[in-house]
Amino acid sequence: MSIDGAGREQPGTDEERVGRYVRMAAHPGEGAALADALLHVAANMREAPGCEMYLVNLSADEPDVVWVTELWSDEQSSDRALGGELGQVGLEDVVAHLAAPPELIAVRPLGGVGLPTA
Amino acid sequence: MSIDGAGREQPGTDEERVGRYVRMAAHPGEGAALADALLHVAANMREAPGCEMYLVNLSADEPDVVWVTELWSDEQSSDRALGGELGQVGLEDVVAHLAAPPELIAVRPLGGVGLPTA
Repeated sequence: MSIDGAGREQPGTDEERVGRYVRMAAHPGEGAALADALLHVAANMREAPGCEMYLVNLSADEPDVVWVTELWSDEQSSDRALGGELGQVGLEDVVAHLAAPPELIAVRPLGGVGLPTA
Repeated sequence: MSIDGAGREQPGTDEERVGRYVRMAAHPGEGAALADALLHVAANMREAPGCEMYLVNLSADEPDVVWVTELWSDEQSSDRALGGELGQVGLEDVVAHLAAPPELIAVRPLGGVGLPTA
């Protein structure tokens, strides 16, 4: 993330941006509760500097699996927003529903429809 | 997708929306060319009705693997935009670089940061 002359935060450049798909498997029957907990985290992410996407999805094929589509202006923004106290952003409630550690697919966004303009 | 009183297309409702992560593995050394071909498809998708996201990403871990993050207002919009002649939207060039069939992770978007308002 960069700061323009007026002190406003600017969207990340294509080189700095990081994205990830995060797969989370809930305990049996707890998929909806996990999704709710993640929507609560998403609400807290709305004001997080550098958070360009934090989109909560149910798996279409696997019951009790939730995927989060994340896009950050840079790695540091992601670390700052998600790396603090779990309880602060609601991640404690998320962890309580997890049957296994989250699995990440890390990507480097290039462009296309839906990418904020750098 | 729905049409409002003035005939404008409206973003899909949360129930209708479909999303997917599409993993495409290129022939060795052709990852960048595959990404370029997909960015060309993305440019064509910009005007496709119901296309809310078509975001091209390089894998951060796997060389020559590209991921596309798709979000559609409904299944029909996706079928219409991607289901026609491959050459029309540039998918022919994409297929030429593929080492294997694309793999899909299908999701149902619920909400969060980065989802167009229904």
